[in-house]
Amino acid sequence: MSHKIAVLPGDGIGPEIVEQAQRVLGALGMDLETQTAAVGGAAFDEFEHPLPPATLELAKNSSAVLFGAVGDWKYDSLPREFRPEQAILGLRKALGLFANLRPAILYPQLANASSLKPEVVSGLDILIVRELTGDIYFGQPRGVRDVAEGPFKGEHQGFDTMHYADTEVRRIARVGFEAARKRGHKLCSVDKSNVLETSQFWRDIVTEVARDYPDVQLSHMYVDNAAMQLVRAPKEFDVIVTGNLFGDILSDEAAMLTGSIGMLPSASLNASNQGLYEPSHGSAPDIAGKNLANPLATILSAAMMLRYSLDADAQAKRIEAAVQSVLEQGLRTTDIYEEGSHKVSTSEMGDAVLKAL
Amino acid sequence: MSHKIAVLPGDGIGPEIVEQAQRVLGALGMDLETQTAAVGGAAFDEFEHPLPPATLELAKNSSAVLFGAVGDWKYDSLPREFRPEQAILGLRKALGLFANLRPAILYPQLANASSLKPEVVSGLDILIVRELTGDIYFGQPRGVRDVAEGPFKGEHQGFDTMHYADTEVRRIARVGFEAARKRGHKLCSVDKSNVLETSQFWRDIVTEVARDYPDVQLSHMYVDNAAMQLVRAPKEFDVIVTGNLFGDILSDEAAMLTGSIGMLPSASLNASNQGLYEPSHGSAPDIAGKNLANPLATILSAAMMLRYSLDADAQAKRIEAAVQSVLEQGLRTTDIYEEGSHKVSTSEMGDAVLKAL
Ligand SMILES: CC(C)[C@H](C(=O)O)[C@@H](O)C(=O)O
Ligand SMILES: CC(C)[C@H](C(=O)O)[C@@H](O)C(=O)O
Repeated sequence: MSHKIAVLPGDGIGPEIVEQAQRVLGALGMDLETQTAAVGGAAFDEFEHPLPPATLELAKNSSAVLFGAVGDWKYDSLPREFRPEQAILGLRKALGLFANLRPAILYPQLANASSLKPEVVSGLDILIVRELTGDIYFGQPRGVRDVAEGPFKGEHQGFDTMHYADTEVRRIARVGFEAARKRGHKLCSVDKSNVLETSQFWRDIVTEVARDYPDVQLSHMYVDNAAMQLVRAPKEFDVIVTGNLFGDILSDEAAMLTGSIGMLPSASLNASNQGLYEPSHGSAPDIAGKNLANPLATILSAAMMLRYSLDADAQAKRIEAAVQSVLEQGLRTTDIYEEGSHKVSTSEMGDAVLKAL
Repeated sequence: MSHKIAVLPGDGIGPEIVEQAQRVLGALGMDLETQTAAVGGAAFDEFEHPLPPATLELAKNSSAVLFGAVGDWKYDSLPREFRPEQAILGLRKALGLFANLRPAILYPQLANASSLKPEVVSGLDILIVRELTGDIYFGQPRGVRDVAEGPFKGEHQGFDTMHYADTEVRRIARVGFEAARKRGHKLCSVDKSNVLETSQFWRDIVTEVARDYPDVQLSHMYVDNAAMQLVRAPKEFDVIVTGNLFGDILSDEAAMLTGSIGMLPSASLNASNQGLYEPSHGSAPDIAGKNLANPLATILSAAMMLRYSLDADAQAKRIEAAVQSVLEQGLRTTDIYEEGSHKVSTSEMGDAVLKAL
């Protein structure tokens, strides 16, 4: 069976890192049909929209989307609906990609890259499960309005709505519990239920879902405390499950604990395991086109794609082993370079992974 | 002129740390009139409310509130409005304490306490200015309702409203700019304007206010990126200004970077410089009553009280110098103890500060 994959390189370093991931996929000898389309600022330049209809159609009709990165300073002054990052929000919503899996793994070879002490982070391996289609990201109503009463009556006010419905919490909780079951059997649900109604609702449902997972140890933590504990003792976590907004913040904080965000992939899945796969880092316009970017997060995202959307776990493992091997060989792009290692370019890193396959 | 100070010790270690701060205040030879009242779980036990009317009245009629800490596991199952932390939310709202100042300072003597590498954090001195009476903390409507339309129609949904009005943003922005002006002249405003209307509104107003502060260098950062940069290179920040929810998360993250949250004070001010002063740490019920807690954050909060609400900067500096001196003498409570230093109890630490005054 042939799998259709939509390739959306995007902006900045997107095209060059996606190119390396495509080379790796191509070398597996699998029957993959890839089709490339414009997204982000690049799509805006060409089609006056960051997510043109043809790109959205292609994504919908594919088993998976391999996504590079979007964004560039030059689009900052556009009205919000035309900015590059709207493409990613649009894809998440249109494809119903409610489950975002963001591993924060510190490769032993890169322990020095972290700003944290080695004993605090070495061997770090946590998984953040972030809800991705609900919360304050998409809640209506939102906008700017006149204040109707109270001390600021008559002034303008910006406003947004946070909400989570029963099913939304239930299904992401299940993803969290299932993931914990396959790992260390510990799930920490993060919320702000001492202040937010949405969070109290979230917490009640997660607690209910826990009854189906007696083998998983569930804990609850406030988001402010979670932000602290990630800094203090990140290895105490196994799987974290949280809402869209808190997940945005905590998954980036967790990624940075490793000091090597250029290594971290992500997967965003819907109920039928259709998924979007992208590196956890951004589009880095400052180094775009210079053959300097680290392609490994994108290559590892392609591995996640094989595992979750293409049911090809063995091939995913091949890629992951190849990445391990190039790290052991001492090959490093600029972002993870340290003295004594061997500095390589984006394409040389791709070559090395291909060779190690 | 005599100053009236409301002393609210609260729960857990609250009473013992506040006692030491009161001893220090008492030794300054100032004309201070202190009056103690119940708050938090302790108040609930006695008066069936975490913020009894008499406590609220006292706080309103005082120049400043010296606050210990509230909370204990045993109140976790109470309906939200009776839980200890509602007292602090109630005080903030009733007194209009919109400006929360949270320094994250790493004392050179405690550099080892951090989970971050010394070179990343030594000399850390950042100030987080958090808006404290608006945002999603108090926004109406909020609650649980039936979903009216869409895929989850008919289900229950928890929801909250985030909002900021013009004046709310303007006045906290001014606090941020003024603080930056007295420090390193750098202000970073943190929001999530790529997603939230409230944040775009916030960003536009902060940008407007910046015109009055040409000597301060303003930057804007998304909250997810800020959570990363705090881990990667916290010393790049000088003053951060942000909303209530993001400030809750980032100020705790920043505090934990120091590894010595037992040292960090905070101030919450209203427009007339009436203020509430409390340590950044919690009530630590596990060590309550054992004479183990670190009283320095509370003692330093008393110093902030002198500076901001009592216009007694010289006395504030005396306290801060005394705290520096006990650290130099090698005195450490358990939380900041390391080999080679001299372990002391809560009251011994208080004694030492008194002696150093
Ligand atoms: C670009 C932005 C809208 C996006 C988000 O906030 O979800 C990004 O930060 C992410 O985490 O993928
Ligand atoms: C106790 C809680 C309501 C409070 C908050 O979220 O503001 C606390 O975390 C704080 O930061 O003072």
